[in-house]
Amino acid sequence: MALIVQKFGGSSVANAERVKNVAKIVCDTYKEGNDVVVVVSAQGDTTDDLISEAKVINPKAPKRELDQLLAAGEQISISLLAMAIESLGYPVISLLGWQAGFNTNSVYGSARIKNIRPNRLQAELAKRNIVVVAGFQGINRYDDITTLGRGGSDTSAVAIAAALHADKCQIFTDVEGVYTADPRKVEGAKKLKEITYDEMLELATLGAQVLNNRSVEMAKKYSIKLEVLSSLNPIPGTIVKEVAKMEKMLIRGVTNDTDVALVSILGVQDNPGVAFKVFAKLSQKQINVDIILQSFGRNSTKDIVFSVSKENGPVAVELLKELDVLDGAEIVCDTSVAKVSIVGAGMESHPGTATKMFEALYDRGINIKMISTSEIKISVIIDADEAERAVSAVHSAFIPND
Amino acid sequence: MALIVQKFGGSSVANAERVKNVAKIVCDTYKEGNDVVVVVSAQGDTTDDLISEAKVINPKAPKRELDQLLAAGEQISISLLAMAIESLGYPVISLLGWQAGFNTNSVYGSARIKNIRPNRLQAELAKRNIVVVAGFQGINRYDDITTLGRGGSDTSAVAIAAALHADKCQIFTDVEGVYTADPRKVEGAKKLKEITYDEMLELATLGAQVLNNRSVEMAKKYSIKLEVLSSLNPIPGTIVKEVAKMEKMLIRGVTNDTDVALVSILGVQDNPGVAFKVFAKLSQKQINVDIILQSFGRNSTKDIVFSVSKENGPVAVELLKELDVLDGAEIVCDTSVAKVSIVGAGMESHPGTATKMFEALYDRGINIKMISTSEIKISVIIDADEAERAVSAVHSAFIPND
Repeated sequence: MALIVQKFGGSSVANAERVKNVAKIVCDTYKEGNDVVVVVSAQGDTTDDLISEAKVINPKAPKRELDQLLAAGEQISISLLAMAIESLGYPVISLLGWQAGFNTNSVYGSARIKNIRPNRLQAELAKRNIVVVAGFQGINRYDDITTLGRGGSDTSAVAIAAALHADKCQIFTDVEGVYTADPRKVEGAKKLKEITYDEMLELATLGAQVLNNRSVEMAKKYSIKLEVLSSLNPIPGTIVKEVAKMEKMLIRGVTNDTDVALVSILGVQDNPGVAFKVFAKLSQKQINVDIILQSFGRNSTKDIVFSVSKENGPVAVELLKELDVLDGAEIVCDTSVAKVSIVGAGMESHPGTATKMFEALYDRGINIKMISTSEIKISVIIDADEAERAVSAVHSAFIPND
Repeated sequence: MALIVQKFGGSSVANAERVKNVAKIVCDTYKEGNDVVVVVSAQGDTTDDLISEAKVINPKAPKRELDQLLAAGEQISISLLAMAIESLGYPVISLLGWQAGFNTNSVYGSARIKNIRPNRLQAELAKRNIVVVAGFQGINRYDDITTLGRGGSDTSAVAIAAALHADKCQIFTDVEGVYTADPRKVEGAKKLKEITYDEMLELATLGAQVLNNRSVEMAKKYSIKLEVLSSLNPIPGTIVKEVAKMEKMLIRGVTNDTDVALVSILGVQDNPGVAFKVFAKLSQKQINVDIILQSFGRNSTKDIVFSVSKENGPVAVELLKELDVLDGAEIVCDTSVAKVSIVGAGMESHPGTATKMFEALYDRGINIKMISTSEIKISVIIDADEAERAVSAVHSAFIPND
């Protein structure tokens, strides 16, 4: 007998039929003698629909009230799922975030979990109830409802797994696991049996939107074994843990992140502190900079190029135009770029990995604008038009075809 | 400056436009220097829609989970209304039932309010916030969400008015006040300026669905001055209080209740205790009996006739068939009846009131099947087909035409 936390996203509970399907998966797990805590998101497009309704009434709605509104979404899905489980003949109770003991800070819209008081959860499990918990939500010290931001239900599930010392946290999605590349776009993309937390983190950061990053970080911190699997076809998925078998692959996956903009500052006077002033200005406004490139230009000037999210590209340009030290420099933003990356804990011991990636791109005539490397990742910025071709090229260079 | 509680029903907040309309009424009241607490129901058909969704998943859904589900309805309406008020530039906060301190018993689906801890409400009013409270909901001692049953938001509003010693509790509906008869059906129906609690209670019981009965009882108990008025045309409505001016009318109103069934037990052997056994059986199954008539039949048998709600008619027949003492009796149910009533505190001192009512019916050739009287009410059971004609006849006999 084990304690298993299962998390189902909005598409898994989008309608009555899917809610019943989820109920069956949960009851099958319970029937095997396990204690089960289920975390669910709001049904289908509920959250987006509620946000649209709010915008009609008040385009700048107070964030506290938005959280109060959005939390109703999971309230609906947990009670419906509990009803479905009850109709299969199993003991069940649904709990809202605050009933399940989720205490958060007060940053409405993207609150952080401070702690979970597990008393109620433990009491319900002791009664042999299946416990259905509303993901994405908690309360702050004022007893006001907060939400954890997009993907927050993954974090809720991992946090419960940590608080209850669960044996496993299963994240059910609409894909069958973590793949070496997007299987809808890349022929030969393979499902991974295992992957490390760090690799998963890099994949998530790089745009493989299977698991929310905060949830993986938390799983790593508390050594929670995660499994990513499909709610529509519940065969074994991908296990995320500290050490993963390499399965004869040098890399875990190839990703394509199109949410990238390149900002170029050309012809900066080469004075000390310019770079510092540029990035201090951006960080004051909470703009995250990813890859940075600095090079010498003509006539003792230099060029600074960096990548940010697409949304932040034009914002960054406007901010930088305010800086005196950049007077005379040309500041431009290019949003037609993409970041293609390979991820794998194995690559650090294989010096030829980068070369192999660049060669694959060169063979297809794809021009690299920028390069960034970490211990388990190599990213290149290229033209957005060429991104899908680049992913295929790199994937077939690294992932063996069976 | 006064403290005013305003309650808006589901149709008053059915869509974005109406939510904004309610926000305007609330802000106008606040602008005049009043403290305002607003109680709202779920939007439009939300509650019915949620119940339908639940039925698809589990026709016998646990009541605790139904309450958990339904409470999401007011959660949506309070946050949207708060956003609308904020967009008009006024300070506002929305509170769920539990946040507003509503403690109830544990009868899911029709919980009773035990008390209101007013700390949070008072603190928000002290900050000069407009406070928007979710009607219809509270929590029990286990921290589980309960609902107060249909019309519960009226009760929530009056309970807050009592807890905060409010100066007035305004119930906004889609009619302009309490009328002497249904103005859509009876020509010459008049809006009352004032009415007593007791008269209002009788009118509500008799099918004039303006105010929930429990809310009027509570208003009477705590002497809360109620006002019934329209959210679409906010002119002065009807005041409900302890003593009301009579406005030269003998009666306050004529009502037509079609939710009536007549159950007849014909040819019962005249043994002692038969009536007791009949009504004990019904009360065991929570079936409320309204009017009872017992008469002698042929051959030392007797007939017992009583009225119940339409839904309970066939149920009562089945239950009574199980009783040995009724062996040989014929038990039938007639659902094509209606109850027409007149209500008015003045009638007790006017012995001719009943005669005048019966005469009005006799003049139109309407046959009376049963009669029931109390100090401030006279009811007759007649054929459902004749009910509307009867209401008009009685109304024009009692209410002076201007």
